[in-house]
Amino acid sequence: MDTILLAVAAGGIGLIAAALLAMRVLKQPQGNDEVRDIGALIQEGSSAFLRKEYSILALFVLVIFVILAAFIDYNVLNNDMINSLAQGGAVTSDGPWTAIAYVIGAIGSGLAGFIGMNIAVRGNTRTATAAQSGLNKALQVAFSTGAVMGLTVVGIGIIGVSALWIIFENPNVIAGFGFGASSIALFARVGGGIYTKAADVGADLVGKVEAGLDEDDPRNPAVIADNVGDNVGDVAGMGADLFESYVGSIIATISLAFLGIASGASYSLEDPKAVLPIVIAGIGIISSILGMFLVRTGDNADMGKLLWTLRYGIFGAGGLALIGTGLYINSQEALGFDLFWVVVVGIIVGQVIGTSTEWFTSYEGLKIGSWEFNPVKWIAQQSETGHPSTIIAGISVGLYSTVIPALAIVVGIFLANELAGLYGIGLAAVGMLSTLGITLATDAYGPVADNAGGIAEQAHLDPDVRERTDSLDALGNTTAATGKGFAIGSAVLTALALLVAYSLVTGVTTLDLLEPKVLMGTVIGGLLPFLFSGLTMQAVGTAAGEMIEEVRRQFREIPGLKEGKPGVKPDAARAVAISTQGSLKAMVIPGLVAILAPIAIGSIMGAEALGGMLAGSIVSGFLLAIFMANAGGAWDNAKKFVELGNFGGKGSDTHAAAVTGDTVGDPFKDTSGPAINILLKLMAIVSLIFGPLFI
Amino acid sequence: MDTILLAVAAGGIGLIAAALLAMRVLKQPQGNDEVRDIGALIQEGSSAFLRKEYSILALFVLVIFVILAAFIDYNVLNNDMINSLAQGGAVTSDGPWTAIAYVIGAIGSGLAGFIGMNIAVRGNTRTATAAQSGLNKALQVAFSTGAVMGLTVVGIGIIGVSALWIIFENPNVIAGFGFGASSIALFARVGGGIYTKAADVGADLVGKVEAGLDEDDPRNPAVIADNVGDNVGDVAGMGADLFESYVGSIIATISLAFLGIASGASYSLEDPKAVLPIVIAGIGIISSILGMFLVRTGDNADMGKLLWTLRYGIFGAGGLALIGTGLYINSQEALGFDLFWVVVVGIIVGQVIGTSTEWFTSYEGLKIGSWEFNPVKWIAQQSETGHPSTIIAGISVGLYSTVIPALAIVVGIFLANELAGLYGIGLAAVGMLSTLGITLATDAYGPVADNAGGIAEQAHLDPDVRERTDSLDALGNTTAATGKGFAIGSAVLTALALLVAYSLVTGVTTLDLLEPKVLMGTVIGGLLPFLFSGLTMQAVGTAAGEMIEEVRRQFREIPGLKEGKPGVKPDAARAVAISTQGSLKAMVIPGLVAILAPIAIGSIMGAEALGGMLAGSIVSGFLLAIFMANAGGAWDNAKKFVELGNFGGKGSDTHAAAVTGDTVGDPFKDTSGPAINILLKLMAIVSLIFGPLFI
Repeated sequence: MDTILLAVAAGGIGLIAAALLAMRVLKQPQGNDEVRDIGALIQEGSSAFLRKEYSILALFVLVIFVILAAFIDYNVLNNDMINSLAQGGAVTSDGPWTAIAYVIGAIGSGLAGFIGMNIAVRGNTRTATAAQSGLNKALQVAFSTGAVMGLTVVGIGIIGVSALWIIFENPNVIAGFGFGASSIALFARVGGGIYTKAADVGADLVGKVEAGLDEDDPRNPAVIADNVGDNVGDVAGMGADLFESYVGSIIATISLAFLGIASGASYSLEDPKAVLPIVIAGIGIISSILGMFLVRTGDNADMGKLLWTLRYGIFGAGGLALIGTGLYINSQEALGFDLFWVVVVGIIVGQVIGTSTEWFTSYEGLKIGSWEFNPVKWIAQQSETGHPSTIIAGISVGLYSTVIPALAIVVGIFLANELAGLYGIGLAAVGMLSTLGITLATDAYGPVADNAGGIAEQAHLDPDVRERTDSLDALGNTTAATGKGFAIGSAVLTALALLVAYSLVTGVTTLDLLEPKVLMGTVIGGLLPFLFSGLTMQAVGTAAGEMIEEVRRQFREIPGLKEGKPGVKPDAARAVAISTQGSLKAMVIPGLVAILAPIAIGSIMGAEALGGMLAGSIVSGFLLAIFMANAGGAWDNAKKFVELGNFGGKGSDTHAAAVTGDTVGDPFKDTSGPAINILLKLMAIVSLIFGPLFI
Repeated sequence: MDTILLAVAAGGIGLIAAALLAMRVLKQPQGNDEVRDIGALIQEGSSAFLRKEYSILALFVLVIFVILAAFIDYNVLNNDMINSLAQGGAVTSDGPWTAIAYVIGAIGSGLAGFIGMNIAVRGNTRTATAAQSGLNKALQVAFSTGAVMGLTVVGIGIIGVSALWIIFENPNVIAGFGFGASSIALFARVGGGIYTKAADVGADLVGKVEAGLDEDDPRNPAVIADNVGDNVGDVAGMGADLFESYVGSIIATISLAFLGIASGASYSLEDPKAVLPIVIAGIGIISSILGMFLVRTGDNADMGKLLWTLRYGIFGAGGLALIGTGLYINSQEALGFDLFWVVVVGIIVGQVIGTSTEWFTSYEGLKIGSWEFNPVKWIAQQSETGHPSTIIAGISVGLYSTVIPALAIVVGIFLANELAGLYGIGLAAVGMLSTLGITLATDAYGPVADNAGGIAEQAHLDPDVRERTDSLDALGNTTAATGKGFAIGSAVLTALALLVAYSLVTGVTTLDLLEPKVLMGTVIGGLLPFLFSGLTMQAVGTAAGEMIEEVRRQFREIPGLKEGKPGVKPDAARAVAISTQGSLKAMVIPGLVAILAPIAIGSIMGAEALGGMLAGSIVSGFLLAIFMANAGGAWDNAKKFVELGNFGGKGSDTHAAAVTGDTVGDPFKDTSGPAINILLKLMAIVSLIFGPLFI
C-alpha cells in the first residue's frame, strides 16, 4: 500500500510539474496582434472540435456505462462464469464499480486531451514569438508545451489506475478504467486523424497545387483548419493513444499477476508482481521530469545538435528509470532480478522499432562505412519517372520496413517469456512506456512547432523566424516517426498482454490454430485492420473532398481572395466547421466496428474464436500499421529531400510526383496507421471485460 | 485402381482435346506480312524469356533434387521422425523417389507453361486476323487458344499425380510432385509478373505520358516487350500458379485421407477418400470440355452477351461436374453424401470470391433496385481532385474489398469442417478447382485478345478490328478479375489443407497461439507476405526504371523514331532483353525468401513455430493478395471508365490522375498480389516435406 501511494505521489509530482510548465509557457509573450488573431482562430477551432467530439462521446459513454453496469457488475444474465469470477474476487458484484471506473477512465483521458490541447494552442503563438529572439528560446517554449501533455497523461494515468486498484483491488474494475481510456482514444485518434488529414489534403490540393499558393498562405481558407488539425490529431489524438497504451499495459500486467496466481491462493493488494508495474511507472515519471532538464541548446544549434539535445533528455530519463527500477527490484526479495531484464528488453525493443522507423523515413538513412541504405532518397529518385513510380516505391519501402519491427517484437516476446513467462510480455510493455512523460513531450512538441511556423507565415513575421520554426519542425518529424514506432510497438505488446489476460479470465487456455473455430476467428481478426483502414482512408478521402469543394468555392465566390487583395480574408471558420462535421460523422462506423466486432464474434462464435480473432488482429494490424506509418513518413521526407534542391527541386515534375506521394502518405501515417493501434487495444480490452459472457 | 485409371484417362482426353484445339488454332490464317512480323517478334521475345528462365530453373531444380534425395529419401541425418514415417509408409526409403517426383512436377509445370505460351503467341496473330471477319470468329480463336492452356494444365496435372500415386502409393512422393510444380510456379509467376509489369509501366510512362503516343503505338520500343509480358506473365505465370493450386489441392486432400486414418490401420491405394479428389478432378476435365462447346456467340454480340456466353460455358461445366460428382459419391457406400456438399461449398466459395472481385473491380458494380454500390466510379470521381485522391480512393477500396472474400473463406472453413472434418478443407479446394480446365481457358484467353489488339494497332489494321479485339479484351479483364479471385481462394484453401497435412505428418497436433513459440511463428508468418510484396514491388520499380531509361534513350538516339518517319523502327529486341534480364535477376531474392523461410524457422524455432508461421502467412497473405488484386483491378477500370468520356474523358487532368492509379495498380494486381498465392502454397509444401526434420 505504501509503495503504491509513493507511485501516486510521483503522479502528483508529475501533475504539479505540468502545471508549473504550463504557467511558464503562458507567461511568455503572445506576440503582435496578427499573431494573436491567428492564434485565437486556431484556439476557437480546436475548442469547437473538442466540444462537439465530447458531446457525442458523452452519450456514447453513457450507453456503455449502462451496459457495463447491467451485464458485468450486476450480471443480469446471471452468467455462471461471472458469478464464479466474482467469488474469486476478479469481478465486482456489490455495485456498478466497473461501469464507474469506465467513466473515470473516459474522463481521465478526455481531461488529459483537453489540458494538453489547450496548452498546445497557446504554446504555438508563444513559440512563434519566442523564435524571434532565437532558436533555444523557441525550443524551450515548444518543448515545455509538449511536456505539459506528456506529464499530464502519465500523471492522470498512474493516479487513476493506482487509486482504483487501492480502493477495489479488482482487476476487472481497473480494466473498466482502461476501457474508458480506450473509448476516448478511439474517437480522439480516429476523429482527430480524419480531421487533420482532411484539412491537410484539402489545403494542399487546392491551395498549393491548383492555386499555386505556398504552404500556410493566409489566403488559403483551409490553412486554419490545417493548423487546428495538428492540435486535435497530433496532440490530443496521440496523447489519448498513448494514455491508453500506458494505462493498458499497467492494467494488463496487474491482471496477469492477479490471475496468474493459483486459484484459491491467498492474494493481497501488495502482491509484488501487481505492484511492480505501478512502481516502474512512478519511477519513470520522476525520471522523465529530471530528463527534461537536459533539453536545452545554444542559439546556433544545427539539426544534429537539436536532435541530440532531445536524445540526451530521452536517454537520460531512460537511464535513470532503469537505475531506479533495478534498485527497486533488487530490494524486493519476492521479485527475481530477471524482471529487471524484462524491463530492459521492453526499452530496447521500443528503441529498435523507433530507430528502424527513423532509418526508413529520414533522408539521413543508415550509413555503415561506404555502404548506404536510404529508401527515402530512392523514393525521391523514383519520382523522376512520375507519380506512379513515387507511389510504387513508397509502398514497397513501407512493405519491407515491417521486417525489423516484426523481428524485434518476436525477439522481445521470446526474451520476455523466457525471463518471466507471459507476465513478462506485459512488463516489457510497461518498461517500454515507463518514460512516456518525456517521449510524449518530444512527440507533442512537433505539432506545436509546426503550428508556430504556420502562424509565422500567416502573420508575415521575419523569414528568420520561419527558418527557425522550420528546423524545429523538421526535428519534430523525426521524433514523431520514432514516437509512432513506440506507439505501435507498445500497442502490440499491450494488446498481447491483454490477450493473455483474456485467456486467463475466460479459462480458454489454448488457442489452437488447427481448431477450425480459432482459425476462423484468426482470419476475421486479420481482416479487421484491413476493413478499419479502408474505412478510415475512405473517410479521409470523403472529408477531404468536401474541404476541397469548400476551398474552391471560397476562391470562386470571395472576390479578391486569390489575388491577395489587402483586407480580404478567407472564411476560415466555415472550413473548420466542415472538417469538424466531416470527421465526426466519419468516425462513427469505424468506431462501431471496433467495439462491436469482439462482442459479435464472442456471442456468435464463442470465446475461443474471439481469442483467435484478437491474435489475428494483432498480427495483421501490427504489420499494416508499420507499413502505413513508414510509407507515409518516407514519402513525406522524400518530398522534403526534393525540396532541398535534389532531382530538380521545388516546382519540377519530380517535385509534383513527390508531393503526390506525400499527400497519399498523410492519411497513411496520421490517420489509418495510428488508428490501428487503438483498434487492437480496444478490441482486446472489450474482450477482456466481456469475455466471461461468451463461455 | 480402375477408378484412378479412369481419371488418368480423363486427363488423356483433356490432352487430346488440347492437341485438337491447338491444331484448329494453328490452321487459322496468320494474316498479312506486317502481322506476321510483329507476331514473330513476340514469339521470339517470349521464347527467349522462357529459355533463360528454364536454364536458371534447371540449375535450381538440380540443387533441390540433391537436397531432397539426401535429406528426405535417403535420410542422411538419420532423422527418427522420417524413419518412423518411412515404416508407416508415409515417406519413401528405397530410392530417391520424392526427389524424382519433384523433378517430374517441375517438368510437368514447365511443359504446361511452354505449351500454353507457345500456342498463345501463335493464337494472338490469328485472333487479330480472325477479327477482320467478325467478333464470333475472333472469340473462337482466342478462346480455343486459352482452352489449350486450360486443358494442358489439368491434363498434365491429373496424369502426374495419379501415376505417381499408383506407382508409389506414398503421400510424400506426390508432395514432391507438388513441390516441383510450386518451384516452377514461383519463378514463372514472380519472374513473369515482374517482366510484364516492368514492360507495361515502362511503355506507359514514357510512351503514353512523355511522348504522347497511343497505347500499342509501334514507335514505342517497349510495346513488343509489353506484348511479350502478357504471354509470359498472364498466360504462363497464371497457368503455373493454377497448376500448382490444382495439383496442390489434390495432393493435400490425398495426404489428409492417408494421414487421417488411425496409425496402424490397414491402408490401401483404393481408400475411397484418397481416390475421391482424383475422381472429382477427372469428372471436372470431361465437364470442362463439354462446357467449352457452349462458348459461341453471334457476330453482333455486345459485352453483356459475350460475358454470358463465357458464363454459360463455365456454369454448364460446373453443373455437369456437380452432377457427375454427386452420382459418383452416391455410388460409393464408403463415402457419405456430405462430401458432395463439401464440393458444393468449395464451388460456391470460389464463386462468391470471384463475384465480389467483379463488383469491386468493374464499373458495372452492384445494383439492387435504386441502391448502387460502385467503388470504381467513386475512384474515377475522386480522380477529379488529382493524383493523390485516386490513390487514396483505390487503396481504401482495395482494403475493404477484403471483407467478403474473408467471410466467404471463414464460412467455407466452417461448413467444410462441419461436413467432413479437416479433410473437408482440402476437398473444398478440389471442388473449387474441379472445372479449372474451362475457368483457366477464360482467363488465358484475355491476354491473347489483348495481344491481338496490340498487333492490330501496330500492323495498322482496320479500326473495326481493334474495336472487336477491344471488346474481347474488356471481357477478358472481367474474367481475369474473377479468375484472380479463384486463384487466391483456391490458394488459401490449398495452403490450409497442406498446413493440416503438415500437422499430421509432424505430429504437431496443436498450434496454440498462447504458446510463445507459435505466436512468434505467427508474427513472422504474417510478416513474410509483406516482405515478399515489398521485394516484388521494388523489383518492378527497378526493372521499370531500366526500361524507361532504355525507351528514352531510343527516342533520343534513333533519328526519326518519335516523329514516325517511315521505315524507322525501334529496337524492340533490346527492350525485350532488358525486361528479361531485369525480371530474372529480380526474382532471385523473393524466391529464396519463399523457400528458405520455412526451412530456417523450422530449424531454428522448431516445428510448432513453423506451423504458426504457415498460419500467419496464410492469414496476412490472403488479405494482402485480395487487397492488391482488387485495388489494382479497380484502378484499371476506373481509368477505363474515365476514358469512356466520364469526368472529362481522355486527355483531361482527371484522366491523368486515373492513369496514375492504373499504373500503380499494374504491379499490385499482376505481380505482387498473385505472387503471394505462390508464396503461401510453396511455403506450405516445403514445410510438409521437410517438416519431419524439425521434430
